[in-house]
Amino acid sequence: MSTRPIPVIGESAKRNRGRRVAVIGAGSWGTTFAKVLADAGCDVTIWARRPEVAQEIQVAKRNSQYLPGINLPKGLKATSDLAQVLRGARLVFLAVPSQTMRQNLIDIEPYLDRRSVLVSLVKGVEKTTTMRMSEVIADTLDVGPERIGVVSGPNIALEIAKEQPTGGVASCADLQVAQEIATACTAPYFRGYVNTDVIGTELGGVLKNLIALAIGIVDGVGYGENTKAAIITRGLAEMTEFAVASGADPTTLSGLAGLGDLITTCQSPLSRNNTAGRLIGQGYTQEETREQMQQVAEGITSVSPVLELARERGIEMPIVQQVQMVLQGRMAPKDLGPHLTTEDGVPQPELSLGTDRPGLWRRFVNRMKGTAA
Amino acid sequence: MSTRPIPVIGESAKRNRGRRVAVIGAGSWGTTFAKVLADAGCDVTIWARRPEVAQEIQVAKRNSQYLPGINLPKGLKATSDLAQVLRGARLVFLAVPSQTMRQNLIDIEPYLDRRSVLVSLVKGVEKTTTMRMSEVIADTLDVGPERIGVVSGPNIALEIAKEQPTGGVASCADLQVAQEIATACTAPYFRGYVNTDVIGTELGGVLKNLIALAIGIVDGVGYGENTKAAIITRGLAEMTEFAVASGADPTTLSGLAGLGDLITTCQSPLSRNNTAGRLIGQGYTQEETREQMQQVAEGITSVSPVLELARERGIEMPIVQQVQMVLQGRMAPKDLGPHLTTEDGVPQPELSLGTDRPGLWRRFVNRMKGTAA
Repeated sequence: MSTRPIPVIGESAKRNRGRRVAVIGAGSWGTTFAKVLADAGCDVTIWARRPEVAQEIQVAKRNSQYLPGINLPKGLKATSDLAQVLRGARLVFLAVPSQTMRQNLIDIEPYLDRRSVLVSLVKGVEKTTTMRMSEVIADTLDVGPERIGVVSGPNIALEIAKEQPTGGVASCADLQVAQEIATACTAPYFRGYVNTDVIGTELGGVLKNLIALAIGIVDGVGYGENTKAAIITRGLAEMTEFAVASGADPTTLSGLAGLGDLITTCQSPLSRNNTAGRLIGQGYTQEETREQMQQVAEGITSVSPVLELARERGIEMPIVQQVQMVLQGRMAPKDLGPHLTTEDGVPQPELSLGTDRPGLWRRFVNRMKGTAA
Repeated sequence: MSTRPIPVIGESAKRNRGRRVAVIGAGSWGTTFAKVLADAGCDVTIWARRPEVAQEIQVAKRNSQYLPGINLPKGLKATSDLAQVLRGARLVFLAVPSQTMRQNLIDIEPYLDRRSVLVSLVKGVEKTTTMRMSEVIADTLDVGPERIGVVSGPNIALEIAKEQPTGGVASCADLQVAQEIATACTAPYFRGYVNTDVIGTELGGVLKNLIALAIGIVDGVGYGENTKAAIITRGLAEMTEFAVASGADPTTLSGLAGLGDLITTCQSPLSRNNTAGRLIGQGYTQEETREQMQQVAEGITSVSPVLELARERGIEMPIVQQVQMVLQGRMAPKDLGPHLTTEDGVPQPELSLGTDRPGLWRRFVNRMKGTAA
């Protein structure tokens, strides 16, 4: 059997020759993404807070704590010196915990080139402000939207580190910058796509956790693939409606940063939200689940704030509402199904793509026509 | 913990009181759907070709060959007499093998009420004509589009027979008829939604098999959740583009009959297409796979005809193309990734929703505006 090489390999390596990039944060995702960038042909330096981690990456080409067993690329450099990592880096990828993003930005500000683009690899919102990561960047640093990007997608770090093929979306309000980011991270096993919808790209990574909780719950009850597929399908519709009401483009949610990430999170037994849901579905209380897991899953803390925003925006999110009822002990896990919570006597059209509400339709169609919403 | 009943139960039972329906075919799906209809409150008779199967359902309320261990509803009647099953049935649900649909329609024609609606529960196309089931109905019987419906979704029979919650879409060109069908099958554990896009609803059930093959292949290679999620996401975009070029509404493919069914098929280890792909991914040839499985998976036979149609319509289907290359031995299974097969040097926007091609966009937007395509 002859093997046909994936044509992308040589191309992207050529386009990335001499491209100097920085990765801030050497956890499993930061280290994995640094490997992707290096394998894509970029000149990559990764910053680790702890000198011993930087030292191990630099010398042994390993990060044994966060990516055990993975060999890192020869060309990957590492340091714990912020000035050094940022010097001459046009693209600065941020892979730090969401709750420390703001402090990290303050720390790197003095060393930033004024043409640098800041690219968040982080999913989640800042708890104290409910800002998305791109909003935290805009709020902290004096950079315009053309210097703020995000990359998101179905991205379990260890699988990518093992070079199992997948892709992600690079998003920036400026399409050319999005293309620059996507080019930088297109390696033989990772393909970068582009869009200009930062809001939708980020919200996909936040909202999926709520649906993953629902999937965990029905998994704990013992329901099978139909139930889960129906919840993912209807859950994506809810996510899309919420995102569109927040200013996103509905097509983003049907892409890798929405649907792709949602499926991965719902299928991965390692997902914290999935695990928390499963314990609750098996009959543990919210309190017991927290004790069992030694932490609160991010999805659980997001349920109430998201539903509150949904209410303000006039959006129904029946699956998330049912998750809340289960969490509050007002619904048995086995009753959490893909059903809507209300029935008015006439079967409903599918509420897919956030397009069932006339206002949203109009907005969507206007965007397609290139006119203002 | 208090249990909140799903409100749908009483409502639909009330609306279905006295509704006389027939199910033609007592395999696992026909029997399961008859149970759904009966549990929804309809007056259901199921037809089995073999008298002993009808007898077992009628008397013992079991179908031990196709649904072992499942108790069927008390009120469910069964017969092997076509005249009897069709008498007074406004809705006639067809659950026969796709390749015998035409003959079954010829057989039932003499007994059909002239107001009866024929509802296909069958996924697939007639091999000799490549017609979808609704097209076979229109081609065989003298019925207009307002008397032809389909029901589709993420529907593994045994899971529904076990009353694990899920849903499906009832589709008919006439919205009121679609609502009648959806009402008839809305049971406590099964919710019917409606649309008027018969083409999209049926194509979802056909095209998913091609993507399930791709998932099986990468599963056989040993790739994980990221790769599969990326293939499902990109595969849905390909399915959608093909369906839209065939006259479907893109939103249908994002619903239960598209995405929902796709996820279920890709996750189910029992899917024949999934299994065939897995064997090929493990290194078996197409020939060996056929021998091993004692049959050809439907997806495998559809690859070439679908790609030919796609070419005629000017559609790119890179994942399906890669499946074909693997089947033909021109690509190693491990190279089947979510990558596009061509790269023109600039990262591409996601091709989601069949909306990347200007012609499709225009058509889609025109449909939204209520103007002709």
